[in-house]
Amino acid sequence: MSEMIKIAVDAMGGDNSPKKIIDGIIHNHQYDKNNFYKIFGDKKKIQSLINSKINNNNFEIVNTLNKVNSEDSPLEAAKKGKDTSMWLAVESVKNKSCDIVISAGNTGALLVISKLNLKMIENIDKPALSALWPNKNGMSVVLDLGANIECSPKNLFDFSLMGAALYRSLYSNIPNVALLNIGSEELKGNETIKETFKLLNNKKTQDFNFSGYIEGNELMNGNVNVIVSDGFTGNVALKTAEGTANFITSELKKALNGNLIGKISSLLNISNLKKFKKRLDPRRYNGAIFIGLDSPVVKSHGGTDFIGFSNSLDVCSRIIKGNLIEKIKNNI
Amino acid sequence: MSEMIKIAVDAMGGDNSPKKIIDGIIHNHQYDKNNFYKIFGDKKKIQSLINSKINNNNFEIVNTLNKVNSEDSPLEAAKKGKDTSMWLAVESVKNKSCDIVISAGNTGALLVISKLNLKMIENIDKPALSALWPNKNGMSVVLDLGANIECSPKNLFDFSLMGAALYRSLYSNIPNVALLNIGSEELKGNETIKETFKLLNNKKTQDFNFSGYIEGNELMNGNVNVIVSDGFTGNVALKTAEGTANFITSELKKALNGNLIGKISSLLNISNLKKFKKRLDPRRYNGAIFIGLDSPVVKSHGGTDFIGFSNSLDVCSRIIKGNLIEKIKNNI
Repeated sequence: MSEMIKIAVDAMGGDNSPKKIIDGIIHNHQYDKNNFYKIFGDKKKIQSLINSKINNNNFEIVNTLNKVNSEDSPLEAAKKGKDTSMWLAVESVKNKSCDIVISAGNTGALLVISKLNLKMIENIDKPALSALWPNKNGMSVVLDLGANIECSPKNLFDFSLMGAALYRSLYSNIPNVALLNIGSEELKGNETIKETFKLLNNKKTQDFNFSGYIEGNELMNGNVNVIVSDGFTGNVALKTAEGTANFITSELKKALNGNLIGKISSLLNISNLKKFKKRLDPRRYNGAIFIGLDSPVVKSHGGTDFIGFSNSLDVCSRIIKGNLIEKIKNNI
Repeated sequence: MSEMIKIAVDAMGGDNSPKKIIDGIIHNHQYDKNNFYKIFGDKKKIQSLINSKINNNNFEIVNTLNKVNSEDSPLEAAKKGKDTSMWLAVESVKNKSCDIVISAGNTGALLVISKLNLKMIENIDKPALSALWPNKNGMSVVLDLGANIECSPKNLFDFSLMGAALYRSLYSNIPNVALLNIGSEELKGNETIKETFKLLNNKKTQDFNFSGYIEGNELMNGNVNVIVSDGFTGNVALKTAEGTANFITSELKKALNGNLIGKISSLLNISNLKKFKKRLDPRRYNGAIFIGLDSPVVKSHGGTDFIGFSNSLDVCSRIIKGNLIEKIKNNI
């Protein structure tokens, strides 16, 4: 067995925690015995939930009863002190006792506590929040999703390098990188985007191919693997895609259940619809990855279930196996 | 019969023109005899396409062989002179021989030629491109969609007033207006948005209700009727929604046709799927409305078919019946 991947897990964040978190770890452990989980939270509760379903040499519990709540402001969360499950989990990455940290808790708090504890990668000015997004051919990486509302050309340039490194650490092959814009012509867009275009066009690299601009309607075509944007636009785009997907699937449900024939034929078709549902299952691409700090920080969706959380644990282990941080440093 | 609505139609723009345009007029004429179409373009072609299918007192053709091409830059289009079908159509609104103008041609050219010919409404600083967007309860108005990449608080404030007026002229009832943002808390967003929030919050009006911020994932919930954004973000959001809808329906098609049972049950279910398709048919909300000038300008999608174009003609007549320009002036 290769060296174990040590994942720091904040067990107390998100809905139905710590149960969902521990069930997710148990699920993840079933198919990956190479992960070691350092679990931060209410030891008594966690122990009883684990209930001998994880090998003893695959986990450790660090007991703490203090935690960040979902409604805490980032500042309030940081002020709660250094013994919240979130703070301790992040700190364990800072002091190198873990390789990567994951939480399903308060996003703003996680970003701030991470920035307080972890150093920036040299020559990166701002960290970015990135996520996986399904497309016709697989998945793409999108960043920034809201960590930075206003960005300079240098920031967007950094995001491109980091996004490319993230893609390569997850999927091995060389990605096509594009800037999210409102037209594909070189003249379109604001000054920041045009300046970033020049920076990327002049960058000599084997790490990615620069494909220029991409428009919103092409995001899911699968031709581009890394989509770069400021945090405001990226957040609006991702959430609009989510909202559109929900709207369409709920309209579809209404239509298919409209009458008896509809119901019967939907039943007949259930395995195909299941395939469709699985393809678009948000649990498959659950979570966001905060990059730019000298350790990666993974944010699982607070509302996901244990399967979604287990998938995010898998992303954690792939990020470490893929040497993300080293790849970012090499890209700069 | 009430006074006829006089629509200036550029017959030479978009794919398959003038055939699509004329077929659209014929279709629109079948259920609305109160529209008068002033048609600009190649008279010989247009005459033979009309082929007596429109009452003689419902149309007039203004012959011109010069036209704007889809690949012309806005500047090239304007330089082509004052005898292109697009220029002449816009000019007929300027000299009040028509109430409203519609083209399925080059968007950039239409915006520039409109701005060259038509005056701004007093106290409005920039015109905006708006569109209709389906939601759970009906349609909402979204603006700006790309006419203005960078916007001041005053611009976004103006867009809110104009969008509310557009919604009321189309649907009569008082709309809820919201600013597209990346969070619903008052503290989120950039300075421009926060400043606009204050302006709208302080505006005493019976014309609309200000609902604060809206996030991308809520755009289709149907709680907000007018969604306001700068042209960059709005364009990305609309196109991302389009791309997501296309992606999901193509995945659904693949899933439903996966095997024989799938095909048979989809056939059984065909009327329900048709209802679903109809609900999301982009032809139902074809076109964008350019507002802020002293006459409204309607841009039909270049790629739509005659049904889509006919729907846009219907939007033209509803805008005039709803007294859009007067409503905007009253809102200011």
